[in-house]
Amino acid sequence: MQIIDTLIHARWIIPIEPTNLVYEHYSLAIHEGKILGLLPTELAILTYHSDNIIELKTHALTAGFINAHTHAAMTLMRGIADDLTLMDWLQNHIWVLENKWMSEEFVRDGTDLAIAEMLRGGTTCFNDMYFFPDVAAQRAIKHGMRASLGLIVIDFPTVWGENSDEYIQKGLSLHHNLKTHELITTPFAPHAPYTVSDEPLKRINELAQDLKLPVHIHLHETAYEIESALAQNGERPMERLKNLGLINDSLIAVHATQLSNDEIQLLADSGASIVHCPESNLKLASGFCPVAKCLAAGINVALGTDGAASNNDLDMLGEMRTAALIGKAVANDASVIPAMTALRMATINGAKALGLENKIGSLEIGKSADIIAIDLSDLETQPLYCPISQIVYAASRHQVTDVWVAGEQLLTSRHLTTFDLKELKETVEKWRVRLIQPTQA
Amino acid sequence: MQIIDTLIHARWIIPIEPTNLVYEHYSLAIHEGKILGLLPTELAILTYHSDNIIELKTHALTAGFINAHTHAAMTLMRGIADDLTLMDWLQNHIWVLENKWMSEEFVRDGTDLAIAEMLRGGTTCFNDMYFFPDVAAQRAIKHGMRASLGLIVIDFPTVWGENSDEYIQKGLSLHHNLKTHELITTPFAPHAPYTVSDEPLKRINELAQDLKLPVHIHLHETAYEIESALAQNGERPMERLKNLGLINDSLIAVHATQLSNDEIQLLADSGASIVHCPESNLKLASGFCPVAKCLAAGINVALGTDGAASNNDLDMLGEMRTAALIGKAVANDASVIPAMTALRMATINGAKALGLENKIGSLEIGKSADIIAIDLSDLETQPLYCPISQIVYAASRHQVTDVWVAGEQLLTSRHLTTFDLKELKETVEKWRVRLIQPTQA
Repeated sequence: MQIIDTLIHARWIIPIEPTNLVYEHYSLAIHEGKILGLLPTELAILTYHSDNIIELKTHALTAGFINAHTHAAMTLMRGIADDLTLMDWLQNHIWVLENKWMSEEFVRDGTDLAIAEMLRGGTTCFNDMYFFPDVAAQRAIKHGMRASLGLIVIDFPTVWGENSDEYIQKGLSLHHNLKTHELITTPFAPHAPYTVSDEPLKRINELAQDLKLPVHIHLHETAYEIESALAQNGERPMERLKNLGLINDSLIAVHATQLSNDEIQLLADSGASIVHCPESNLKLASGFCPVAKCLAAGINVALGTDGAASNNDLDMLGEMRTAALIGKAVANDASVIPAMTALRMATINGAKALGLENKIGSLEIGKSADIIAIDLSDLETQPLYCPISQIVYAASRHQVTDVWVAGEQLLTSRHLTTFDLKELKETVEKWRVRLIQPTQA
Repeated sequence: MQIIDTLIHARWIIPIEPTNLVYEHYSLAIHEGKILGLLPTELAILTYHSDNIIELKTHALTAGFINAHTHAAMTLMRGIADDLTLMDWLQNHIWVLENKWMSEEFVRDGTDLAIAEMLRGGTTCFNDMYFFPDVAAQRAIKHGMRASLGLIVIDFPTVWGENSDEYIQKGLSLHHNLKTHELITTPFAPHAPYTVSDEPLKRINELAQDLKLPVHIHLHETAYEIESALAQNGERPMERLKNLGLINDSLIAVHATQLSNDEIQLLADSGASIVHCPESNLKLASGFCPVAKCLAAGINVALGTDGAASNNDLDMLGEMRTAALIGKAVANDASVIPAMTALRMATINGAKALGLENKIGSLEIGKSADIIAIDLSDLETQPLYCPISQIVYAASRHQVTDVWVAGEQLLTSRHLTTFDLKELKETVEKWRVRLIQPTQA
C-alpha cells in the first residue's frame, strides 16, 4: 500500500482529457499537490493508504474551472450601475468610482471577495487584469488560489503608474518576484488597442516573446471600437496588432465579438486564443462572438466572466451554460457547442490560453490537483441521464461542495477554509457605504 | 390589535406594483390566504397580532414567480437528449419516448418533480400545456401550488384523446369540474398552428370567448414553422390565426421568435400576450424574440421556461436574467429590459397573460398571498446596492428560502412542506431506469 496525502472516492470523474468520458465509481489519488492516480475505486482501495479519505457518493469530480478573464476587485462594484450603455457605464460610473477609490486597499478587499466567490463556484484559477496586481498576487497566495495576474499597461496615468514605461517596469519587477511561485503566473496585460499606443505594444510583444509570457488584451469588444479605430487610423484593431506582430500564439484576445472570416482565419493560423465572455457581452450589448465558427476554424476558445460590475457574478457554471445556449442561437444550429465543449472551454481551453495546459485544466496523472466536486443529488439535477449535461445545463454553483488547488482543500462541504466569511462580509459592507457617497462632478 | 394568520417582517419588500419601488423594514400581514396589510414593520407590530410571526432580516419579499409556459411532466426527460436540432430532438427522441411512456403515472410523477423544483425556485404558479391536465390539476392541488392547466387540443390521437372533438370535450369537462377551485384555472391550449386545423381552432375561440378563458398556443417558434406554413397554404401562421379570429386579448402566444413589424403591431393592438422562453429558444436555436420592440409597442410580455427537456431547468430567476441579457443584445442597447422590467415579466406580466392580474403577480392589499422570500445575505449578492439588481443579475435560486401560495407556506427555510423529498427522488429514479431502456424503432 502506497501512503498518500489524499484519496477521493467519487461517483463520477470527468477527466476532461480524454474528452467525452465519464468514469463511474472512480478515485483520485493526490500526493504533494499533484494527481498521482486515477483508477476504479475498488482498485484504489487496494493500492493507496491515506489518513485523508473523502467519500463523494453523489458527486462528479472534474477539473477546476479557469475563469480566463476577470477584473476581480471590481466585484466591489457589483450592481452599482446596471442597464446602461457601455460608454455611459464606463465614463459616468465605473471610471468615476475607480478614479475616486482606487487603492491597494480596494484591490485587496475586492480581490478577496472575488476569490471567495470564485472558489465557492468551483473556479480554481483566474486570469486577471487590474491595478495593483502585486496586491492581487498576495491575496491569491494567502487564500491558496491559483491566479494569472496581468501586468497591466495603459497609456494614461493611474495610481498604479504614470505612463506605459512605468507600467512595464513595475510589471517586469512583479514578474521577477513571482516567477517561481507555484500558484502565480504573470502575463502582460495591455488594456486594449484604443488605450495602448504602438510603441508600448511593440515593447510588450518583445518582452513577452523573450520571457515566454502570454499577452492578455481586450480586442474587438464592440462595433464602436472598430469604427473609431477605422476613423482614427484607417485600420481595424486586429490589423494594427498584426502589423505590430502581436497576433501570435501568446495572444489572449478577450471578447472578439466583431470578427470577419479573414480575422477568424488569422487567429486560427496564429495559434492565438479567444476568451469568450458571453454574459458581459450580452449585458453591455457589445455583440455576439461567433464561437462555433471560431471553434470550427480551430481557434482555442476559453471562457471568462469579465468583471462582476458587468455580469454581475463570477459564476463559471452559469457562464458555461450561457456560452452553450447563445453559441447555438448565434450559429443557428442547436447541435453546436454541446455540453462537453462548454465544459472544455471552462477548463482545458482556459489552461491552453494561459500557457498552463501541462499543469492544469484536466484530471491527468502528473498535473496539479486543481479539482472540484459537484453534488448532483439535488432535485434540480434529477433524473440524471448524463453528468456532463447536468453540470452544464442544470446544476447551480451552490452544488459545488469541495474544491482543491494544488492539493490544498479550499472548500470543504461548502465551507471556505482560508476565509473568515463574517469578516469578509463586514469589509465589503464598509466599501458599499463608501462607494455610495455622492461623487462631485 | 387585529388578530391575523401570519405576519412577515422583511428587510425589503418589492411590491411590483407600484413599479421600481423597494420598501425597507416593511411587513406583510396575511389573513385567510390574502394580503391584508403592507406597512412599515414598526407600525405592523402595533397593528397586528399573530401566532405565526416570521422574521426575514436579510431577505427581500416579492410576488411569487409565474412560469407562463411549461410542459411540467417533461421534467422526467431533463437532459435525456441535448444538443440536437429541434426536429431531430422532437421526432427521434421526445415523441418516441412520449409515445412509449405517456400515461397518467408519467404525468403524475413528472408534474410532482416539476412542482417541487418550481417551488424551491420561487415559482408559485405555472401555465402548463401537456397531456392529462386532470392529473396535473390533482398534483397541483395536493401540493398547494397554483396552476393554469391548459386544455390541450391536437388533431392527432394520443393517449389523452382520439381527435380534436374528444380533446375539446374532455377539456370542457375538466374546466367544469375545476372552475371554482381557488388554485386552478383552465385556459384552452391548442398545441400549435401546425398541429391544429381550422375547425377546432374556430370552435376553441368561440368557447374561449363564451367561457372567458385564455388560449395558450405555441406561435412562430421557428423560421421553419413560418416557411412550411407559407409553402402549405400561403399564409404565415399569425395571419391564419387572425383570419380565424384568434388574435385577441385572450391569446397567449408562446415563443414569437419570428415577428414582422406588422405582426408586432397586430399583437399590440389586439391586447394579446407573448410568453418569451429565452433559454429554450437559445438551446433549440429557434431564434430571438424581439422583446424590447414588443414591450415598446405595448405588448404584455411574460416569461416561461418551457419544458425542462429543452432548457434544462424550471428556474425563473435564471430565466429572468437570461431574458434581460439577451434582450439587450438583440436590441443592441444595454439600457433596455432593465432589472425591474425582467422582474415584472416574471410576475405581473405573467398574471396578465393568464387573466389573473386581479389576483396574483404583485404584493397588493386584497390579492392572494402568493409570496416568496429571497435571502440576499450570501456573499454572491454582496455588496448590495439594489435588491432588484441583485435578484435579477446575481442571485441564484437556492437563495429562495420561503414560499407561500394563497397564504399556505409551501417552502420553509428551504424545506418543502408538502413533499416527501426522498420518496420523490426514488420515484424519479425509477422513471430514469425505465426511460433509458432501448426503444424499438
